[in-house]
Amino acid sequence: MPLGQRPGDKSDSRYCGVEVLDFPAGEGLPAVLSHSISSGFDFILAPLVDPNYRPAPGAVLPVSASDLVLGPAQWSNHVVGKISEWIDLDAEDERLRLDSELTLKQEIAWASHVSLQACVLPAPRTSFCGNYARVVNQILQGLTNMHLWLRLPLEKSEPMDDDLDKIKNNNHMSEIVDSWELWNSFRLLCDHSSQLCVALDISSTLPSINSLGRWFGEPVKAAILQTNAYLTNSKGYPCLSKRHQRLLTGFFNHSVQVIISGRSNLNVFPASGVLSGDESCIEDSPVRHALAPYLEYIAYLYQKMDPLPEQERFEINYRDFLQSPLQPLMDNLEAQTYETFEKDVVKYTQYRRAVAKALVDRVADDAVSTTRTVLMVVGAGRGPLVRASLQAAEETGRKLKVYAVEKNPNAVITLHSLIKLEGWESLVTVISSDMRCWDAPEKADILVSELLGSFGDNELSPECLDGAQRFLKPDGISIPSSYTSFIQPITASKLHNDIKAHKDIAHFETAYVVKLHRIATLAPTQQVFTFNHPNFSPSASNQRYTKLQFEMLPDMGSCLVHGFAGYFDSVLYKDVHLGIEPNTATPNMFSWFPIFFPLRKPIYVPQGSPIEVHFWRCCAPTKVWYEWAVTTPTPSPVHNSNGRSYWVGL
Amino acid sequence: MPLGQRPGDKSDSRYCGVEVLDFPAGEGLPAVLSHSISSGFDFILAPLVDPNYRPAPGAVLPVSASDLVLGPAQWSNHVVGKISEWIDLDAEDERLRLDSELTLKQEIAWASHVSLQACVLPAPRTSFCGNYARVVNQILQGLTNMHLWLRLPLEKSEPMDDDLDKIKNNNHMSEIVDSWELWNSFRLLCDHSSQLCVALDISSTLPSINSLGRWFGEPVKAAILQTNAYLTNSKGYPCLSKRHQRLLTGFFNHSVQVIISGRSNLNVFPASGVLSGDESCIEDSPVRHALAPYLEYIAYLYQKMDPLPEQERFEINYRDFLQSPLQPLMDNLEAQTYETFEKDVVKYTQYRRAVAKALVDRVADDAVSTTRTVLMVVGAGRGPLVRASLQAAEETGRKLKVYAVEKNPNAVITLHSLIKLEGWESLVTVISSDMRCWDAPEKADILVSELLGSFGDNELSPECLDGAQRFLKPDGISIPSSYTSFIQPITASKLHNDIKAHKDIAHFETAYVVKLHRIATLAPTQQVFTFNHPNFSPSASNQRYTKLQFEMLPDMGSCLVHGFAGYFDSVLYKDVHLGIEPNTATPNMFSWFPIFFPLRKPIYVPQGSPIEVHFWRCCAPTKVWYEWAVTTPTPSPVHNSNGRSYWVGL
Repeated sequence: MPLGQRPGDKSDSRYCGVEVLDFPAGEGLPAVLSHSISSGFDFILAPLVDPNYRPAPGAVLPVSASDLVLGPAQWSNHVVGKISEWIDLDAEDERLRLDSELTLKQEIAWASHVSLQACVLPAPRTSFCGNYARVVNQILQGLTNMHLWLRLPLEKSEPMDDDLDKIKNNNHMSEIVDSWELWNSFRLLCDHSSQLCVALDISSTLPSINSLGRWFGEPVKAAILQTNAYLTNSKGYPCLSKRHQRLLTGFFNHSVQVIISGRSNLNVFPASGVLSGDESCIEDSPVRHALAPYLEYIAYLYQKMDPLPEQERFEINYRDFLQSPLQPLMDNLEAQTYETFEKDVVKYTQYRRAVAKALVDRVADDAVSTTRTVLMVVGAGRGPLVRASLQAAEETGRKLKVYAVEKNPNAVITLHSLIKLEGWESLVTVISSDMRCWDAPEKADILVSELLGSFGDNELSPECLDGAQRFLKPDGISIPSSYTSFIQPITASKLHNDIKAHKDIAHFETAYVVKLHRIATLAPTQQVFTFNHPNFSPSASNQRYTKLQFEMLPDMGSCLVHGFAGYFDSVLYKDVHLGIEPNTATPNMFSWFPIFFPLRKPIYVPQGSPIEVHFWRCCAPTKVWYEWAVTTPTPSPVHNSNGRSYWVGL
Repeated sequence: MPLGQRPGDKSDSRYCGVEVLDFPAGEGLPAVLSHSISSGFDFILAPLVDPNYRPAPGAVLPVSASDLVLGPAQWSNHVVGKISEWIDLDAEDERLRLDSELTLKQEIAWASHVSLQACVLPAPRTSFCGNYARVVNQILQGLTNMHLWLRLPLEKSEPMDDDLDKIKNNNHMSEIVDSWELWNSFRLLCDHSSQLCVALDISSTLPSINSLGRWFGEPVKAAILQTNAYLTNSKGYPCLSKRHQRLLTGFFNHSVQVIISGRSNLNVFPASGVLSGDESCIEDSPVRHALAPYLEYIAYLYQKMDPLPEQERFEINYRDFLQSPLQPLMDNLEAQTYETFEKDVVKYTQYRRAVAKALVDRVADDAVSTTRTVLMVVGAGRGPLVRASLQAAEETGRKLKVYAVEKNPNAVITLHSLIKLEGWESLVTVISSDMRCWDAPEKADILVSELLGSFGDNELSPECLDGAQRFLKPDGISIPSSYTSFIQPITASKLHNDIKAHKDIAHFETAYVVKLHRIATLAPTQQVFTFNHPNFSPSASNQRYTKLQFEMLPDMGSCLVHGFAGYFDSVLYKDVHLGIEPNTATPNMFSWFPIFFPLRKPIYVPQGSPIEVHFWRCCAPTKVWYEWAVTTPTPSPVHNSNGRSYWVGL
């Protein structure tokens, strides 16, 4: 039974599981399962094999239930396997190590046999997990559908007092206690397998916010919430601290499922006979599960979340889905694309405001009746900027003569219809031409364009506007008057794996438009390139080179950078801006998702180290492209040399 | 004119060049070249373009000589281009940066046009070389044959006094002054391009031996020896310090060419008019080159090197050539392979000595006439061990009964002929069978085998001898009685690039047999796996797991590890051993080259950090394989999971 209904949200975080602590001997699993389900849990995390088992020649695996005891759908939908916790693959004792390897492989084989969707691997016992990772990596090579969730404590363990001296003398030690480090080593050894995920054990103490934030870019599938992480309210019911609540909301928003674990600590629970607090203690009568109050609190938290905003609901299917950027110069957009973008009311409102301010600046109130402003919309598409400009003129009482220049002959047809429909024939002249080669009959006071991509200049607005500048008066205005791109380093394991699936370098040297969701931002954004319009400087070039150094968020610990999220902000005119840079983003605008520049190999940034990245915008006669490279802490290859993998045609 | 003739050595280090310091204006290049050649130099390192040139619209590149002035072979064989040294691609000044980029591209294009084999790129001016590397990387994408040699000072610069405080507070700074670090960043940014090489400038001070050693694993093509690196002997002639001499010998042995550079410092030079010491000052008469005495000293050093030993000469064509290891169990060896291996006199001498000692231990002198020792050669091939064993028996006066067990039916034919030819019919019984399934008529006193590969157990000696142990008496002797594998981390950029050329992961997960030559060993060898024979323990397994931590050589600085060189040592019997582990290698034996375990991505090991590596020997019913992974300083993926890329069939 899902935690609740949240409009638009179809993610896994609606489901809540419960951990079965004791081995349900003697085929007790079905009873445990039905008890849990009837108490509102969606699935159980259950041991599959008697923990007293050790491999021996000819021994039959003592499983908790034969595959016939539950139906295939029950196994698959309601049971997550828990691998025996005694296994220790990095033990000094070779016998224990070999027994552990064999048992792990047998248990996973059994879980595959009954078609479980996932198994939880016990947390590594030490920070030296080389052999554990090697065996898991072997297993991963042969798994088709099942996922393995490596269990890890969420807290960033505080070292013991007598370890502190060691740590001072040895940076390495202080990293070891951070379980993210352990995860990172493990997944690097397993070569970023997309079937290796994380289950985080959550207890009463939590690390810093920034340290927690890293996990949102990692494949965390479950949060195993310990009953001792709960507080008790004045009525004796379980509840969570504000920090825990915020964390859980974060998990809900990132498709992480909660699994409740531990013994009940409650003494107000009404039903008798359950105070023993053992969820495997099943009776004939339908007794409520001892952990049900903990579940109810989770459902309460889930249900009290704000409903997803309409825009988020609209964009939910685009989350973390990589799209190649448009080639608007080389290709003509389709009607449907125009249709979508024209619906962005906020964007055109900003344009209308910008044009209005420019008109007022341009034409004094006492010159209104005698002056007609020449405004050219370059890249008019199907006319939304024409409309916004005419609205601005009406609003300000300025007279306007509009040229609508558009290179796509299909859009020009629509444009003509629009003008006829609206009765704008006397106001608007349609020019079917590429702005870069149009021979304008007069010069413009105002040039209006919407050529910006997610990264500002990435759809070649600079080159187009340079081409159009010929027919702007020397004191004319360009709307936008400038735009700036921004980047920040992010953890994005899902995006990395999706790109890696192509098995080539080219896909790692391509920038993608993507609705970023399961990511962790690791440092504040910084500016990359700025372009100003008009630009009459003779030596002006649209090549750019910027070197940026990011200081990672404080208290965060080490992290893995999979690439850089890119955004833009644009000054349309004076104080009217438009953009998607997170700190200043125009609200409720949906025309742009961020851009993502991946790294061929994710870069580990140790705690305290900055990351230095170089971005180049390169120009050749027929194309423009970016190259990028990291130089600190470790140099990466220069990506996309000569635009070999990704470029925008002129 | 080569420096001299060294039997067997065909490497580039026979050639010596001279750097042209001043731009040979007005088509002066042919004169400079012929003057240099007639004085004994093989080639010149010459500027191609007037250093006063700066790019301007419509400007013609002021080259030092049109392509018609020298013939194609002269350009290609006798001129290495020197890129203008004023270029500074990481300058703060954008104009200078863009001019530098354009000039660099124009000069390289010109050099390609006249088919030069190489150009020398000026040393980066700062340790921040991101833009320089990006432009060079772009150029490398388009080069077909030409190599680019990045010029770097060899010395590990001492920081200025006032930098010392900074360094104490900032580890990063202290690394920057090591020019190897600069090289490493540059080549990582250029993604290990095989056409990017190094030219080292050598002055009077040299860094530590271990620091120098790193360069032998890097693609160093030239040592640019400054005249001020020379000393002057009592007669006024130039000579070099012992350390410089050793360094040059090292370069000669690693195919590095010397280029002499600088002004002459000599004042005893007999010919008049050359004391001005300018090699571009050409007169009509054939005046000796001012730097000729420096060249003569280099030729003297070259000629006084020991001739290449015969074995080295035999192996010279195998240097750094990657071979896949044999599959001796699955495949039958060819006659030619037997032929080669049987010639290894040293190896069979060791076997003869081991068998002799075992016979003496086994049969007391007073029992010689009554005891006949049963000796089985398992894997007899065409009979060399049979011969060695019979020689040992004769030498010690022990009576022998030999079974020669061989699975290859082709070898068995030869074996029968040999026995007939030698008249050994009464002594030797030939068994055409795999030792693992032979049903022996009696038990052996001594089991002799030569099943070892370069890494000891890698040709499955353990599995074969376990299979043969059934017919060894409980107190019987196995020769070899044990063997141990060894590894050490190495820099081997050539091997890395050869593997990378296959463009797949599988070749990076394969171990290769290779005559290691252009490599740098970075730490002393350590033991990996040991096997003892016979082994009657019931729980014996041939699976192994070893974790090794290597401390890098002191004073070396940081380094890049491309993989691990592997060796073996074997105890044949008591104090008779056989092996290729460098510190204890049996001299003059040629049956084994080392083995090389590559890393998919080379691992940077910062100064002071250890490198930790894990090796697993894994066994399945039909195959045996290794997996390997680095965990410190940065985790690598586990290589060759499940033997997916490389395995030995049982």
